[in-house]
Amino acid sequence: MTDERHEFDLIRRLFAPLAASRPEALGLLDDAAILPPNADTELVVTTDCLIAGVHFRTEDPPETIAARALRTNLSDLAAMGAVPDCYTMALGIPNECDETWLTAFTQQLGADQKTHTIDLIGGDTVSTPGPLTITVTAFGRVPVASAIRRSTAHVGDNVYVSGHIGDAALGLALLKEELTGIPEPDMDYLINRFWYPSPRTMLGPALREVASAMADVSDGLLADLAHICSASGVSAIVIADDVPVSNAAKRLIDGAQTTIETLLTSGDDYELVFTATPSSAHHVQDIARETNTTVRRIGIIQASQSPMVALVDRAGTAIALDLPPGYEHQW
Amino acid sequence: MTDERHEFDLIRRLFAPLAASRPEALGLLDDAAILPPNADTELVVTTDCLIAGVHFRTEDPPETIAARALRTNLSDLAAMGAVPDCYTMALGIPNECDETWLTAFTQQLGADQKTHTIDLIGGDTVSTPGPLTITVTAFGRVPVASAIRRSTAHVGDNVYVSGHIGDAALGLALLKEELTGIPEPDMDYLINRFWYPSPRTMLGPALREVASAMADVSDGLLADLAHICSASGVSAIVIADDVPVSNAAKRLIDGAQTTIETLLTSGDDYELVFTATPSSAHHVQDIARETNTTVRRIGIIQASQSPMVALVDRAGTAIALDLPPGYEHQW
Repeated sequence: MTDERHEFDLIRRLFAPLAASRPEALGLLDDAAILPPNADTELVVTTDCLIAGVHFRTEDPPETIAARALRTNLSDLAAMGAVPDCYTMALGIPNECDETWLTAFTQQLGADQKTHTIDLIGGDTVSTPGPLTITVTAFGRVPVASAIRRSTAHVGDNVYVSGHIGDAALGLALLKEELTGIPEPDMDYLINRFWYPSPRTMLGPALREVASAMADVSDGLLADLAHICSASGVSAIVIADDVPVSNAAKRLIDGAQTTIETLLTSGDDYELVFTATPSSAHHVQDIARETNTTVRRIGIIQASQSPMVALVDRAGTAIALDLPPGYEHQW
Repeated sequence: MTDERHEFDLIRRLFAPLAASRPEALGLLDDAAILPPNADTELVVTTDCLIAGVHFRTEDPPETIAARALRTNLSDLAAMGAVPDCYTMALGIPNECDETWLTAFTQQLGADQKTHTIDLIGGDTVSTPGPLTITVTAFGRVPVASAIRRSTAHVGDNVYVSGHIGDAALGLALLKEELTGIPEPDMDYLINRFWYPSPRTMLGPALREVASAMADVSDGLLADLAHICSASGVSAIVIADDVPVSNAAKRLIDGAQTTIETLLTSGDDYELVFTATPSSAHHVQDIARETNTTVRRIGIIQASQSPMVALVDRAGTAIALDLPPGYEHQW
């Protein structure tokens, strides 16, 4: 019990500062946090559970685990067009995560909180005999009735994606030593894209003006676009050559160490895939510039009896996929 | 991947009905749920993480695990005086939890949702190589500025507790076969008090009229009262003989198989401990009657330089405790 008491004090000391600026958190000292009333905004709520050995490697640096735990949730908020507000964190902590580990973990959370203007408001920490388990529930704000859904893509809309697709999957493959002979700068770039996703917390809310439907790319570009199609009752055609990939990824495709099809079905990108009318094409690019994000048109939405996503080359010839277009766990 | 897909469909089929009555949940089909604006109420947010082998036994029936996961959070809401509204659930599911297990688990959630008027609005399910891990984030509502804090107990207040204290700890001891020779009706009663806590979701909100400070009893009566004292800068005196215990617990005390001191420091009761002015004593009992709960005065709040909880007998003689008055993990 003395050890547990010590652990509790340690956690209080490390986590309480992350909530210091928020009176709603009640100093993390009460049974619950209290969010004030708000007549003008809706509260967007998302939850993600990350488990060592499943969503990250047990040996990954604590900073990278903290970054992924918070940023995957920030990406979900961005996908709804929501501005980050606050979050709770429940931690199942194995013995291996000592004070040094927890200090690095909470320092990264603090840095990410500043970058994305979000604060801790509550949580729970328990010892676990199993793997490190992190559950974040994140809250964002949108003006009433302005959240961007998956279910509102329209026939004739363009399909867009932010950033580059496939880097994170290549980074994970490098960490697992499934890829070799890669130049060190490319290795560092790709691994960091897996370890430190860039949730589009500026782009997402800005797209409320123009996007008809949106999702974040967590399960794979084609899978997440399929979720939009399925929810909207439409189909999509994606031109493989138009999907933006990084120079590092391009070199791996050119060297036959990966394929564009693999990158489109891999996941962990935490980019935004969205739809918008052709008449708003300039507006989309203006928003991209204003939020310092690259946004690329990759396809169109079509009418369909049975929603699906087709991948084609520039000539319009269908590209067969070996893999099903992914699946999702989050609901 | 086929197996995972199957699992996902299964989960969608079992969990989606739990969210069917809430448009906010977006059918569990989007990146996040959307709570509508509300100008009149504050949103109370609490999160609890339960892990197999730590908070329940792996072999416990799935119904009991579901009940504890939801009810421990409902108890936190009640302790703030909040009316239950909705919750998210993140599940780390090991292979052993098959369709039969998940069906029983979700059926109990559905039954508890009806009893306590709360609905699922979102979640996440992932496979885990470790123990079953359940994180619930629960939301309740209170009128603006009416939540009951821990930090507002006053010198001269009475201390009250609901229900009976110590049953759950005895139930757990029975499950672990640490107690023997108990009559079967007492065994059943005590084990069910551990498996199926009774969160005081009616009493808690009703006490907003009268309680000066409140907490739920999760770490042990004396420990949770100590949290109130520490947050309020006061001390408390508890009269051991006035603490309400069940007839089953009384028989175990009489048979020297447990002590009142053990029951007061054991936890898992999910009763409410609260303070109120002596002038409101009749009002407190009126509320208890109206909500079909027993509420018992067990002590008083005193001025103190260093907050503490003292246990005394009816003559006022201090009773020494072998154990420190517990500790808490949740923040």
